[in-house]
Amino acid sequence: MRKVAVVGVGFTKFGLSDKTNTEMFAEAAFQALEDANISPKDVEALYFSNVLGEHEDGGQITMAPLAAYEANLKNIPAIRIENACASGNIAFIQACMAVAGGFYDIVLVGGAERCYTMAKKRGTNYATKIFATGGDHRYETPTGYTFPGVFAMMAQRYAYKYGLRMGLLEERMAKVAVKNHSNALYNPIAHFQRKITVEDVLNSPKIAEPLKLLDCCPFSDGAAAVVIASEDVARKITDTPIYVRGIGMASNGPLYRQEDITRVIARELSAKKAYKMAGVESKDIDVVECHDCFTIAEIVAYEGLGLCKHGEGHRLIEDGVTDINGDVPVNPSGGLKAKGHPLGATGVAQVGEITLQLRAEAGRRQVDGAEIGLVDTLGGDLAIVGTIILSR
Amino acid sequence: MRKVAVVGVGFTKFGLSDKTNTEMFAEAAFQALEDANISPKDVEALYFSNVLGEHEDGGQITMAPLAAYEANLKNIPAIRIENACASGNIAFIQACMAVAGGFYDIVLVGGAERCYTMAKKRGTNYATKIFATGGDHRYETPTGYTFPGVFAMMAQRYAYKYGLRMGLLEERMAKVAVKNHSNALYNPIAHFQRKITVEDVLNSPKIAEPLKLLDCCPFSDGAAAVVIASEDVARKITDTPIYVRGIGMASNGPLYRQEDITRVIARELSAKKAYKMAGVESKDIDVVECHDCFTIAEIVAYEGLGLCKHGEGHRLIEDGVTDINGDVPVNPSGGLKAKGHPLGATGVAQVGEITLQLRAEAGRRQVDGAEIGLVDTLGGDLAIVGTIILSR
Repeated sequence: MRKVAVVGVGFTKFGLSDKTNTEMFAEAAFQALEDANISPKDVEALYFSNVLGEHEDGGQITMAPLAAYEANLKNIPAIRIENACASGNIAFIQACMAVAGGFYDIVLVGGAERCYTMAKKRGTNYATKIFATGGDHRYETPTGYTFPGVFAMMAQRYAYKYGLRMGLLEERMAKVAVKNHSNALYNPIAHFQRKITVEDVLNSPKIAEPLKLLDCCPFSDGAAAVVIASEDVARKITDTPIYVRGIGMASNGPLYRQEDITRVIARELSAKKAYKMAGVESKDIDVVECHDCFTIAEIVAYEGLGLCKHGEGHRLIEDGVTDINGDVPVNPSGGLKAKGHPLGATGVAQVGEITLQLRAEAGRRQVDGAEIGLVDTLGGDLAIVGTIILSR
Repeated sequence: MRKVAVVGVGFTKFGLSDKTNTEMFAEAAFQALEDANISPKDVEALYFSNVLGEHEDGGQITMAPLAAYEANLKNIPAIRIENACASGNIAFIQACMAVAGGFYDIVLVGGAERCYTMAKKRGTNYATKIFATGGDHRYETPTGYTFPGVFAMMAQRYAYKYGLRMGLLEERMAKVAVKNHSNALYNPIAHFQRKITVEDVLNSPKIAEPLKLLDCCPFSDGAAAVVIASEDVARKITDTPIYVRGIGMASNGPLYRQEDITRVIARELSAKKAYKMAGVESKDIDVVECHDCFTIAEIVAYEGLGLCKHGEGHRLIEDGVTDINGDVPVNPSGGLKAKGHPLGATGVAQVGEITLQLRAEAGRRQVDGAEIGLVDTLGGDLAIVGTIILSR
């Protein structure tokens, strides 16, 4: 199995866009190709992630070959991966497997989504309902299930299980939002570039008890792309290849079959595989981009990734461990919470951020001396997780 | 790169089902596992294809982990691939790459779709419109574009380009339908098990000039699954491993950017790759399952796969070359035309049929002495094709 490296990254600004998905993707792709100093004809395959293409005007399935064409990637295999919010991560992993297996030397991975456009055109309730199609359509969505509701239940149960006063957990969740907004101030692509306080979060409108508006990630438009290459080719292309050291994926069926909503078992199993493949432990990780779709989700991710014991995630944020200058900075990009969450682009953008961090090119949000980074992305009703460990 | 073999196949009956997609998938999956004589716990990953999950009641994205759970495949990576009608083929290829690359020894590939259910609940016009979301939503679907229309244009242009009287082409197209219906008589899973005549086709209702109803494949529900394994493991599991000798994938942008609607360039490029990898030529192929969504599509596929020269595909059917007892039998299963076309299941079912043929287990539709078989599946607006070459 060959080593694989990230050799180019590109992003659009996250937020509201008047471009189509394939146009946004092409913008990110051209940037990634330029960063890798290669041309479209060098790319042998495209792994493309998009989740809500069916909800484009008139609908759009099989977006991958259209995206390839838009980025001038002529006639190459163009595969769409859809695993809800984890799509970009899983697409990246599939691309790595194809290069590691010797099928290609240079592959582009890209993702694009128009969530803000959907929410603006059709309303927040509509967009929330469409997101909820990531739950099981037989037994979950008919109950009125939405993702804010799921993560509110997670927070409720977390407080109960670990004997925390809800007011205390709410403050600590708020600190996740404050941290991620603070990091996003220095990320030019971030959806939000606005400092917020704990009070701002606590006083923002209730969404689903105990989650407030500022505990939730926004609906974002955006695209991201990364170029990966086999080790030999990567060394020729760039002086700063960022190697894929470990990958992991795991699933855990629908939420209604899961035993404990405070633990994402798919994450624990996925991370274990990635750590093993990379030959590292959680304590070796210098920087993390994790799936903070809601503030409680980041706290639970700390635990699932082994950054602390179960029930202690809330202390990590309280103690500043995951701050940009802490022991294990988490979501220096601003995370889904503040950078934004254009579903299909998210996992790819996380890989892009960790790549910049490990190249020491992250500007004012740089994590000093970061050598090993981890990407964690969750999809569906806690149903699937992909983990990627990268290093210089 | 390791050799990969198909070691188990399973199908539901194609037609109308009262089951959900994941339930149909589980039925096919259990059959494939039994055929391979393994249990769910032996399976290391699921590659799952479904195209129209968004149109389930309430909608369903990220169906793959739910499908895995339904088939008792606990906690494994479960990846959804969506490339319109080619989804199952592309999913199979991704799975092969993962096994060939050494990531897994045993992988399940499955696909499921409920097209008949959609057409029955919402009407044929609705289903036709949803299928058309495989075209470009910016410049094609707004024109009223549907797939019967696209393939009608293909037939019109084919007749013009090669100087054929339309009546003659219509008769030859009708013979494709007659052949495939005849083959399907002996396929227990086929949607249609009804002999038809050329007159039946010519007298059936006009759909899009010159295509009649019986030139078109039906809306089908159904699922298919195959188990693949690395060579070492395959030899332990079965006495009749069917090896993956060559794979190819290629894309060709949206139809409105293509130069000649009578040629599917993505197919030509994809087949070329697969032949090269397999070290065989078109003349070496003993049996083919190709993408006959419309009768003209099969004629054009003959040409794109190199079974004859461009413009001569219509002669192959006339001369009986592709009959079950011809030189190169095509669609012994009945094809999409008569076996049915549950989108996500189609490519997987084609691989299943070729596997049965190469094992000499195809009963009364067996192609005598078949040693090398080819699977060809087309997705979107002639935008993507996957080619798979299998052998004993």
